[in-house]
Amino acid sequence: MSDSASVLARDWLQRFEAALATGDARAALPLFNAECYWRDLVSFTWNLRTEEGHDAIAAMLAARLADVRPSHFQLEGEASTAEGVTEAWFTFETAQARGRGLVRLKDGGAWTLLTSMTELKGFEEKKGPRRIMGAEHGVHKGRETWAEKRQHEQATLGYTEQPEVVIIGGGQGGIGLGARLRRLGVPTIIIEKNPRAGDSWRNRYKSLCLHDPVWYDHLPYMPFPDDWPVFCPKDKIGDWLEMYTKVMELNYWSSTVAEKAHWDEQAQRWDVRVMRDGQAVTLRPRQLVFALGVSGYAQVPKITGAETFEGQQHHSSKHPGGDAWRGKKVVVLGANNSAHDICADLWENGADVTMVQRSSTHIAPSASLMELALGGLYSEQALANGVSTDKADLIFASVPYKIMHTFHIPVYEEMKKRDADLYARLEKAGFMLDFGEDGSGLFMKYLRRGSGYYIDVGASELVANGSIKLKSRVGIERINPRSVTLTDGSELPADLLVYATGYGSMNNWLADLVSPEVADRVGKCWGLGSNTTKDPGPWEGELRNMWKPTPVQNLWIHGGNLHQSRHYSQFLALQLKARMEGLPTPVYKPAPSHHLR
Amino acid sequence: MSDSASVLARDWLQRFEAALATGDARAALPLFNAECYWRDLVSFTWNLRTEEGHDAIAAMLAARLADVRPSHFQLEGEASTAEGVTEAWFTFETAQARGRGLVRLKDGGAWTLLTSMTELKGFEEKKGPRRIMGAEHGVHKGRETWAEKRQHEQATLGYTEQPEVVIIGGGQGGIGLGARLRRLGVPTIIIEKNPRAGDSWRNRYKSLCLHDPVWYDHLPYMPFPDDWPVFCPKDKIGDWLEMYTKVMELNYWSSTVAEKAHWDEQAQRWDVRVMRDGQAVTLRPRQLVFALGVSGYAQVPKITGAETFEGQQHHSSKHPGGDAWRGKKVVVLGANNSAHDICADLWENGADVTMVQRSSTHIAPSASLMELALGGLYSEQALANGVSTDKADLIFASVPYKIMHTFHIPVYEEMKKRDADLYARLEKAGFMLDFGEDGSGLFMKYLRRGSGYYIDVGASELVANGSIKLKSRVGIERINPRSVTLTDGSELPADLLVYATGYGSMNNWLADLVSPEVADRVGKCWGLGSNTTKDPGPWEGELRNMWKPTPVQNLWIHGGNLHQSRHYSQFLALQLKARMEGLPTPVYKPAPSHHLR
Repeated sequence: MSDSASVLARDWLQRFEAALATGDARAALPLFNAECYWRDLVSFTWNLRTEEGHDAIAAMLAARLADVRPSHFQLEGEASTAEGVTEAWFTFETAQARGRGLVRLKDGGAWTLLTSMTELKGFEEKKGPRRIMGAEHGVHKGRETWAEKRQHEQATLGYTEQPEVVIIGGGQGGIGLGARLRRLGVPTIIIEKNPRAGDSWRNRYKSLCLHDPVWYDHLPYMPFPDDWPVFCPKDKIGDWLEMYTKVMELNYWSSTVAEKAHWDEQAQRWDVRVMRDGQAVTLRPRQLVFALGVSGYAQVPKITGAETFEGQQHHSSKHPGGDAWRGKKVVVLGANNSAHDICADLWENGADVTMVQRSSTHIAPSASLMELALGGLYSEQALANGVSTDKADLIFASVPYKIMHTFHIPVYEEMKKRDADLYARLEKAGFMLDFGEDGSGLFMKYLRRGSGYYIDVGASELVANGSIKLKSRVGIERINPRSVTLTDGSELPADLLVYATGYGSMNNWLADLVSPEVADRVGKCWGLGSNTTKDPGPWEGELRNMWKPTPVQNLWIHGGNLHQSRHYSQFLALQLKARMEGLPTPVYKPAPSHHLR
Repeated sequence: MSDSASVLARDWLQRFEAALATGDARAALPLFNAECYWRDLVSFTWNLRTEEGHDAIAAMLAARLADVRPSHFQLEGEASTAEGVTEAWFTFETAQARGRGLVRLKDGGAWTLLTSMTELKGFEEKKGPRRIMGAEHGVHKGRETWAEKRQHEQATLGYTEQPEVVIIGGGQGGIGLGARLRRLGVPTIIIEKNPRAGDSWRNRYKSLCLHDPVWYDHLPYMPFPDDWPVFCPKDKIGDWLEMYTKVMELNYWSSTVAEKAHWDEQAQRWDVRVMRDGQAVTLRPRQLVFALGVSGYAQVPKITGAETFEGQQHHSSKHPGGDAWRGKKVVVLGANNSAHDICADLWENGADVTMVQRSSTHIAPSASLMELALGGLYSEQALANGVSTDKADLIFASVPYKIMHTFHIPVYEEMKKRDADLYARLEKAGFMLDFGEDGSGLFMKYLRRGSGYYIDVGASELVANGSIKLKSRVGIERINPRSVTLTDGSELPADLLVYATGYGSMNNWLADLVSPEVADRVGKCWGLGSNTTKDPGPWEGELRNMWKPTPVQNLWIHGGNLHQSRHYSQFLALQLKARMEGLPTPVYKPAPSHHLR
């Protein structure tokens, strides 16, 4: 089977290469099916784009083929066929770069095609066979040691030498991107307000563990050791991040607050004012990256009477853990991930806790999610099948957003059956369930709106059996000194009120740090334009403004979960490196901004 | 070729298993050639031993077969044949454990056989598919978080809870062993006198880089990132070790000095008095491991007039680097690794430096060493050929010490040709060269005596061209206030005198920390008994006292270079784990002590 699959794939690649070599943008079209998608990560478009259908593909090729000059398409390993679809990995080259791709053939024609840039020619990472010697053979007068070089760099970068890139935000996103830029020799400073790398994890509520399994969560270059728990506790990941910044030799400015940034048109550089350990420093990078998470500021609804509350009230992001609340009455407003985790933790610590659910939530039991949704790509089984993290990331990336929901709907159909008992008991307890507007479940919700779900690691059982009390189909009408009044008129006594009410849009950071005008020019970040709740159209087919050129010159947005940060930091780093080296980087069809913040 | 090799190997393994299953110790002998070696790492013998020849093999089987009950011999991958020798990997089981082996067949019979223990049944490491969940599915009242558990452990272990193992020495050896014990759930405290893990590297002379290439130097479980330099600078490895102790969650007591240890016969535990941050603590471990390096104390020869010297004098281990010695006159006594590195560093810093060579040195140019000696096992090429670090370690271990020199002699014959020009110029400069007494070069010297060589990363050229001045065939007769007088009567002015004169025997540590009697009962550590210089017989065929039961109950010696520490810590950790769990661990033929310290 794989033999004939490889023959088919090799033939397709050969014809594809020949068609592209003609220089005629429409020559390759007969190799694509009527329904077809070509997703490119930087290698053809200097953009993250999905061309949908023949005309879009032809337009892209017409604009880009002369520059890109693609060649050397080579099947990588053996192709395979399942259910009528032949999948084939391949490598290729362009005038500027080397790349890797994945094509899915149906009836001999391409259905989906992924092309991604791996490395820029002449600017390859110095790894593996390219690694440096370290000890120079032959001995040179006056050379600096590694330690002296590092000390020199730390003393000068940001002061007498200016970085090419400043990354605002030193969480997992900024750190992973920083590591990639370091390897590419792009001088970078990462700005982090907390004293230690990893603090953004350490500062969260005590019981927090990653909701995604370990195979999905690696940082670039350095996998977690193979005895790491499936769901990593927050402090352990915090310590890992701290270690990683050191091992990767990042210029990580902790205890540093970014105060203001503006683009100096004349110098073609940013002017970034930061306070480092209480001292003002102005950085002058060419590129500015915001890596402040998927979300903006913590969002706390304005509720009448909040100022009269005599107990404690705080947003979920400030919740330290349940220890202090034994025997106390707690109301948690919200019913997504943090709300569930915090309710469970409070219950464990002996609090009397009520969850207030205003709108429906998608519950995805963790074991089912791992088996049904992630298992093929991110699991021990996947590793045993030769699906490395790199490969898994590319497979994930190869599914066009336009049809991604069709891949996911059957998974959640199966989940509904498998976990029918839990779902029935939750509904009986009054819990409002959903599976996304089109039944496509967790990941599509995450991509479209970044919220609306709980990956169940146990709290749903507590909701179902009443250990965590539930008030659903209501909100909080009014806050009283020792209680809250719900919209149905009922009253809940409360010593503590936790707002698990999510976060604002991530470009609120831009409004404050740069200007509201710049934030509005960048426009909405995240979301695909699916025209579902919180993801207004028009359809864009990629995550808005993420990891690719934004409408504002030299300003970039990095973020996402550990998986996305790991994978997309590769393409963002290559874009930044190419610009530093002065390579031509014509961006094909930069996405317009359709929405303000 | 590999097909028929596999048929041959599979057949041999099948007959071998059948012969062992008879319970008759001599039944397997026809499967071995007249010249044959069986090296066992813990799996058959609870010892590190090489049985040489039929009778030794039969004796071992007679003693051990009934206990071991070996079974499930399975070819692993495909066998291969080259130059008449068929090599085959296999896995097997014993009553207590799972193992991995490598057999070399010649003319259908076994020439060399390696058996090694991989894991104890029922006490497997919780890695890969066995990893823990981390977040417990289902929620439990009062559970501790990961951070709380770690804090609790750090507060209690060594105080209200006693460790099973104390490791004295927190360098690479203690750290790697500590990581393995941690994975096996053996409560362990590592004692290190320096304030930070890695300081034993940081404190060395500034220009120091590892002399072994990166592929050879990994610690267990966490490989260095793939952009690490071939020869790692000392501070970088120091930082890695520090990070590693944290990631591996070791109970690492830095700034702690072990003062005295004695065996409490009644309690069957050690009594180890340590000063931790100036506070006396008594530890009561069942097992005590010395991991203080391959060497004992720094050795400084007593030379007449040393006390009258008005310049600075120190042992190489105390040498900080050459910065302060520009334009000054320096005499370095010694001509091995440290002497060469220190001379080169001083020359780079503009000192006028003379090396005093008392006896001949083996020079192995680093590039040749990598290509000719290590390349097949530890290199990018090896990795590309599927030789992982684990496999390389086992291949290395599979060559019996008795015939190891015959594998090495041709390598150095080739090196002599390849580097003939350098050798000729060194000799012309008066440098005394050797290649070991039997021409077997560097690694055999290392195993036999742990000294007598320089891995050339550049200094030999400086000696050959006179940049580093050389006085050879002489020693220092007398030290004067501003000069030294050599044994040939000549006088060298000196502002600095560096004793690159090596280290004493490693069990001097035992004499001081436990007692001279115990040190003498343990006897000589290191060396094979080859009856060559500094390696007195009788032949033992394994490194004396290393990583295996010593003549003193519950006292162990761990050490060696990064490669050895990585590999042999596996077997030492399994021995300690088995004892903790109360498994029977009858040691086959514990090695007698033939020499005092």
